[in-house]
Amino acid sequence: MSGIKVVTIGGGSSYTPELVEGLIKRYGELPVQELWLVDIPEGEEKLNIVGALAKRMVEKAGVPMKIHLTLDRRQALRDADFVTTQFRVGLLDARAKDESIPLKYGVIGQETNGPGGLFKALRTIPVMLEIATDMEEFCPDAWLINFTNPAGMVTEALLRCSPLEKVVGLCNVPIGMQMGIAKMLQVEADRIHIDFAGLNHMVFGLNVYLDGENITEKLIQQFLSGEKSGVTMENIVDLGWEPAFIEGLKILPCPYHRYYYQTDRILDEEMEAAKTKGTRAQVVQKLEADLFELYKDPDLAVKPPQLEKRGGAYYSDAACRLIHSIYNDKGDIQPVNTKNNGAIQGIPADSAVEVNCVITKDGPKPITVGELPVPVQGLVQQIKSFERVTVEAAVTGDYNTALVAMTINPLVPSDKVAKQLLDEMLEAHQAYLPQFFEKVDV
Amino acid sequence: MSGIKVVTIGGGSSYTPELVEGLIKRYGELPVQELWLVDIPEGEEKLNIVGALAKRMVEKAGVPMKIHLTLDRRQALRDADFVTTQFRVGLLDARAKDESIPLKYGVIGQETNGPGGLFKALRTIPVMLEIATDMEEFCPDAWLINFTNPAGMVTEALLRCSPLEKVVGLCNVPIGMQMGIAKMLQVEADRIHIDFAGLNHMVFGLNVYLDGENITEKLIQQFLSGEKSGVTMENIVDLGWEPAFIEGLKILPCPYHRYYYQTDRILDEEMEAAKTKGTRAQVVQKLEADLFELYKDPDLAVKPPQLEKRGGAYYSDAACRLIHSIYNDKGDIQPVNTKNNGAIQGIPADSAVEVNCVITKDGPKPITVGELPVPVQGLVQQIKSFERVTVEAAVTGDYNTALVAMTINPLVPSDKVAKQLLDEMLEAHQAYLPQFFEKVDV
Amino acid sequence: MSGIKVVTIGGGSSYTPELVEGLIKRYGELPVQELWLVDIPEGEEKLNIVGALAKRMVEKAGVPMKIHLTLDRRQALRDADFVTTQFRVGLLDARAKDESIPLKYGVIGQETNGPGGLFKALRTIPVMLEIATDMEEFCPDAWLINFTNPAGMVTEALLRCSPLEKVVGLCNVPIGMQMGIAKMLQVEADRIHIDFAGLNHMVFGLNVYLDGENITEKLIQQFLSGEKSGVTMENIVDLGWEPAFIEGLKILPCPYHRYYYQTDRILDEEMEAAKTKGTRAQVVQKLEADLFELYKDPDLAVKPPQLEKRGGAYYSDAACRLIHSIYNDKGDIQPVNTKNNGAIQGIPADSAVEVNCVITKDGPKPITVGELPVPVQGLVQQIKSFERVTVEAAVTGDYNTALVAMTINPLVPSDKVAKQLLDEMLEAHQAYLPQFFEKVDV
Amino acid sequence: MSGIKVVTIGGGSSYTPELVEGLIKRYGELPVQELWLVDIPEGEEKLNIVGALAKRMVEKAGVPMKIHLTLDRRQALRDADFVTTQFRVGLLDARAKDESIPLKYGVIGQETNGPGGLFKALRTIPVMLEIATDMEEFCPDAWLINFTNPAGMVTEALLRCSPLEKVVGLCNVPIGMQMGIAKMLQVEADRIHIDFAGLNHMVFGLNVYLDGENITEKLIQQFLSGEKSGVTMENIVDLGWEPAFIEGLKILPCPYHRYYYQTDRILDEEMEAAKTKGTRAQVVQKLEADLFELYKDPDLAVKPPQLEKRGGAYYSDAACRLIHSIYNDKGDIQPVNTKNNGAIQGIPADSAVEVNCVITKDGPKPITVGELPVPVQGLVQQIKSFERVTVEAAVTGDYNTALVAMTINPLVPSDKVAKQLLDEMLEAHQAYLPQFFEKVDV
Repeated sequence: MSGIKVVTIGGGSSYTPELVEGLIKRYGELPVQELWLVDIPEGEEKLNIVGALAKRMVEKAGVPMKIHLTLDRRQALRDADFVTTQFRVGLLDARAKDESIPLKYGVIGQETNGPGGLFKALRTIPVMLEIATDMEEFCPDAWLINFTNPAGMVTEALLRCSPLEKVVGLCNVPIGMQMGIAKMLQVEADRIHIDFAGLNHMVFGLNVYLDGENITEKLIQQFLSGEKSGVTMENIVDLGWEPAFIEGLKILPCPYHRYYYQTDRILDEEMEAAKTKGTRAQVVQKLEADLFELYKDPDLAVKPPQLEKRGGAYYSDAACRLIHSIYNDKGDIQPVNTKNNGAIQGIPADSAVEVNCVITKDGPKPITVGELPVPVQGLVQQIKSFERVTVEAAVTGDYNTALVAMTINPLVPSDKVAKQLLDEMLEAHQAYLPQFFEKVDV
Repeated sequence: MSGIKVVTIGGGSSYTPELVEGLIKRYGELPVQELWLVDIPEGEEKLNIVGALAKRMVEKAGVPMKIHLTLDRRQALRDADFVTTQFRVGLLDARAKDESIPLKYGVIGQETNGPGGLFKALRTIPVMLEIATDMEEFCPDAWLINFTNPAGMVTEALLRCSPLEKVVGLCNVPIGMQMGIAKMLQVEADRIHIDFAGLNHMVFGLNVYLDGENITEKLIQQFLSGEKSGVTMENIVDLGWEPAFIEGLKILPCPYHRYYYQTDRILDEEMEAAKTKGTRAQVVQKLEADLFELYKDPDLAVKPPQLEKRGGAYYSDAACRLIHSIYNDKGDIQPVNTKNNGAIQGIPADSAVEVNCVITKDGPKPITVGELPVPVQGLVQQIKSFERVTVEAAVTGDYNTALVAMTINPLVPSDKVAKQLLDEMLEAHQAYLPQFFEKVDV
Repeated sequence: MSGIKVVTIGGGSSYTPELVEGLIKRYGELPVQELWLVDIPEGEEKLNIVGALAKRMVEKAGVPMKIHLTLDRRQALRDADFVTTQFRVGLLDARAKDESIPLKYGVIGQETNGPGGLFKALRTIPVMLEIATDMEEFCPDAWLINFTNPAGMVTEALLRCSPLEKVVGLCNVPIGMQMGIAKMLQVEADRIHIDFAGLNHMVFGLNVYLDGENITEKLIQQFLSGEKSGVTMENIVDLGWEPAFIEGLKILPCPYHRYYYQTDRILDEEMEAAKTKGTRAQVVQKLEADLFELYKDPDLAVKPPQLEKRGGAYYSDAACRLIHSIYNDKGDIQPVNTKNNGAIQGIPADSAVEVNCVITKDGPKPITVGELPVPVQGLVQQIKSFERVTVEAAVTGDYNTALVAMTINPLVPSDKVAKQLLDEMLEAHQAYLPQFFEKVDV
Repeated sequence: MSGIKVVTIGGGSSYTPELVEGLIKRYGELPVQELWLVDIPEGEEKLNIVGALAKRMVEKAGVPMKIHLTLDRRQALRDADFVTTQFRVGLLDARAKDESIPLKYGVIGQETNGPGGLFKALRTIPVMLEIATDMEEFCPDAWLINFTNPAGMVTEALLRCSPLEKVVGLCNVPIGMQMGIAKMLQVEADRIHIDFAGLNHMVFGLNVYLDGENITEKLIQQFLSGEKSGVTMENIVDLGWEPAFIEGLKILPCPYHRYYYQTDRILDEEMEAAKTKGTRAQVVQKLEADLFELYKDPDLAVKPPQLEKRGGAYYSDAACRLIHSIYNDKGDIQPVNTKNNGAIQGIPADSAVEVNCVITKDGPKPITVGELPVPVQGLVQQIKSFERVTVEAAVTGDYNTALVAMTINPLVPSDKVAKQLLDEMLEAHQAYLPQFFEKVDV
């Protein structure tokens, strides 16, 4: 192989500098010769800004990696080795609607959970399946590394509805939990190992090890002793957990579990935030604008530290780490979204799960989990039901199926509210949901 | 066999006349020689009233079935052939607390769902396991026919934690659905057949047949056309379903599904009812008082028609029908709660499910269901998780386990509210929860 | 429905009079208006003989059922309600080869087991899939009742490789076991019930009931006390079982299990028989010739008793019984070959199994078995592996796949012998195996 | 931890020098302070010889590892960190009987397969369960590393019938396959990775990788091109495979698969060998005698090269490698026998399988396999059935259960022969089968 070709769909994203930094840092063992940043016409301006920064970064680092900027996805994909996806259908405006419309009905508005997650899936999945079709044509041997949200449902759709087999979904939640625990214990992150298992944004740390010793129980005590949990995410309010609940669970929830186990308080916080500082999309819009201002600076030739506040910390680095391990057949363990294949009992074998895998040149090989602990198994299964119905709705554009998905989502209080939400959100996102509106008469 | 001995635990219940009527009606093929009505000292007065009525009924019918009234359970159980259980630990007062305390926290208060269902299980399961122990000693070959609620969790506990294998749980919801549909279609009930599958109070009608023809789709249309669903229960407010939701599901929910798919509206109704006509327990207390007044009438020698308004219609008749089929090895099909054994994929093989069974002398044999439809599978699995954790809490008396059960219940909005509810309800029901309070120091 | 149309493929078979008798006998509840007997040109003479007898039988019985004889399968299928299949690709000559070639290599030669069963499947499955295609076109709502052997693999192929869903496979082994036990106990057959589970020609009686009482253990003792087992088949030498083996199994094997648990003695018997009275095919050829002589008698208007010696006793009667129960939505229990759907744990959900089913208008619904007893589970799974590979070979015509099937068959002693057998049998049956010989160049 | 304590049961084995060499070689990262070699009185002489050699080896290497020789197992076990087991109940004499008796009945006689494997399990399992009981008392936190054959059934028994959870079974077949392929391809062994899955002595190489590239197909061609397969074992005659069979399988069998796929030829070879050079036990007895002569040499202070011809090459090294990875939480991948836990679909979750695992301080974590390829799945399941019945027979000492195990073994041709074999072998091994002979009257 004469050098690796990486294609990044949604290349104009503010995350791109982290990706470029990650590739530069690993150049010795991961010689990326070409990095193609692809975007759509609406994103051209950002693509040019971030692309220029990427070029300055590469030049400063002195690595022979060529950056290509293009709006022509199909041309870019030709003979790619790795394709990463980090686009947002409808941009942050669509996210703002996903967050604000549910609040009108007293329902949590969030990017990847509840009605917002459903609609993000409905918008994103058809585009992702088109990309898969293009890859089948132009680079059938390439790996698709997806970190577009909702990463779990997107991976489910790719596994079930596309011909691609070389698909991995990535999330920064597990790496964030590892980093958070390391920080809490004041140890290097690589001394911490966590048995991750569940679904995307619904992942649990079943056991936590420090230097190979199982410290789960001790950690849970420590985890509970302070008001703040230590393990948190920038974009989720830290409410703290009811100690006896976590002691009873005996495992670590992820930050997104708060949507399900602290529904009332999250909703209150969101309502309050909407009144004062705006929804998360609005906050991010401001952050993004600031970042792009920074990126424009012709003297900037490194990833600016402000990016880490953006909320997707470690995301692109996780992607680089994964590509590096696949390319070099490392056999190390990373938590990714992949085909279950029996690793977690009680989830269909052909569904996507988020689970620790051995990463090889042949892709991720899940480590066997067996049954999830009984108390959390049911919620995971319920979310998987929701995800499967959502994928069906995204692919078919069937109204009733979408209503079923909305109603069975545990954050939605009733079929009536589900219908109101569905109708208002379908209308709001109409431009990005052709499958629901452009029906051909038979 | 020289004649059958039936023992009814909780024999002083207002339902007993239906049971007696059912046994009289079937006497020809089901020659019950002895019916022992057993109760506790607090229930002695009711036992005497209902026992006297039972004797008058038998005498009037002219069948040679002897009625025994006793407070001595162990004596009664000796050499029994069938034991039915229909008791209520803590009586209607406990139910009133299960219904009213959650409402204070904005949570649905109900007998078998949510926090109320959890506490009813915590009170009932230990008593039921004691009965199982007594049966093991005094009548190891007898069948235990349980219709004490929460029948699903009670059956789960008996299957997992008692040595008894001859255990069946019964519910009147399926028969009620069959009757309701027959009434809606204006046909005889026995022309309707429904493929039932799910859990107790979480059962679905997967297909409905009229004279063997699958009429599910047609029925769903009809079901949705009127404001009232036709299939309803006396003790559940009939809210009607969102038509497109049921069309999307393509199967029939049971009335209790409204707690999960219409949570907000059920809560509003309950709040309103609590202010005006009182909780369901209060309504039932009044109904019961009226019924016992009727039962006292020395001229009454039949089941009074007023009993059918009580809410448990068909319950005792379902029990008689089941006993009749077991005794006569009928091989007919009845929906009961039994060990899954693989009938429903995705539910543990050793868990209780509510499913159509062929009823034989060797007990119920579940008819294979395969996977439940994807949209409902997740909720059923989530409730099964809750049921399993609840059984563990009931048996161990472990506080944290009980808190986990409360928190993962989908009707409870957060771990904080779960803890408040748990603490208040533990205190309110302390007299019936020795496992949580009488801990031995180690 | 104005009257039922039944189509019998392979209508010239010597079994047809039993089928006709069965339909006449049930005419009151199963009003078959048209019976189409279909055959191929090579079978025209037999079709005419047996068709004439069928007409005489109907006339004598005085039922208004019209018999049609035809060589045009597609025309016959139009608007059929039930299609039964009882043909033999390659006729008895092919069977003779299946029986005699293996013996040359010291391998059991048998119609449905070992190399013979493999080749019968390779010849039959493509024809059956063509019939399924025709049915899809001409009578998509009809039920296909297959009793062409090897019935298990044929059903597997139909379930996996055809669009038909209304498919049932039938065998007379279970009914033969029931009859044999009834005879042994000198009771009416309908007082005996057996829990059948396994695969076709690999079915076990897990429990045996007399009037609903489980008599399995007692029966096994009785079964073992005599030299002859009582439960046997005309076409299988009765060797008797090693008593302690059956006592250890605690369940009833079927006669075909002798091929696997008494391999050496069956082989000796076959070798001996081949030298003296000829293979089973030769014996049957003689029996058939005699039967057709009888059938020609213009005075014969009933099924002649000699047919019962033919070896397929109860086959056609089982088919009539099944059709009757489907048509009338009887809900009785019959052992048939159908989609497993989880009924037997450890066998794929989409594979064919032979298991007790409730027979309804909507088809057979398997009764849940759970896991088979450990000692027999492995053999059943091994045969299912063989069956699945065989179906793949039959459909693809791939040589290597056929060799794998031959080698993994437990009656074949090695890969070398497997290859010799495969090569000789492919050549011998070439005329009926176009998929292996008429490969199109790509 | 102040230094590791290793206890080797059967320490007088001729393999011990390899173990000692392995520990010396790894001393830097695996500081074993004490190595206790334990044996029974009958083995004392050998223990002293090999123990003296071990001491010379340690001294020469200059590592501070103390060697203890003892006949007191319970004392030795106290506070052990790792216990390895490599004993042989009945010594090589018993093996000679396992090999020779079956041959009298025309059945393959082998140490771990067929009747011999059954009897080795019957003798070994009770002793191993006693060791487990002692460990529970004296070193409950120690890991038990078993390489006593039949390692699969022994692990199955430990997992199902002992309280120990820290149990791993080891075999040298997978490492031998890896070494053989490396040799065939003339590359370093660590450039070869194989996806191992199956059971002990029934393991398959599902995929073979060279530097991470999947070379399975290419390798199969190469594997088949020569007369000798390249992948072989010293103690198994190399018959070569039928090329089209392996091409059809598309995976690599292990050498022991020849017993099942080349049964006739293996039997012929064994018969021939028995007449000429004696059974394998006899050959090994001679080899062992020679080895112990060498070991006695007071100038010998290294593992003599002759040991590698003994047949158990890599065994002890595999044990050291495993201990090293557990102790150091390496996270590397090794094929071991462990609890399935869902890694291989179609095998019970609580059964032992041989599968690639990530080796951590917390033990081996199986990598998910999913379903085995259909053609081999059935044989693996059949052997697992046999193993489970064998374990039951070993624990209960029940004659009928042992007969069932013998009869269902695929190398045994019938129930009659099974009984003859069982009776003769029970008598021959009576001294080591107290569970079958010392029955207490009840």
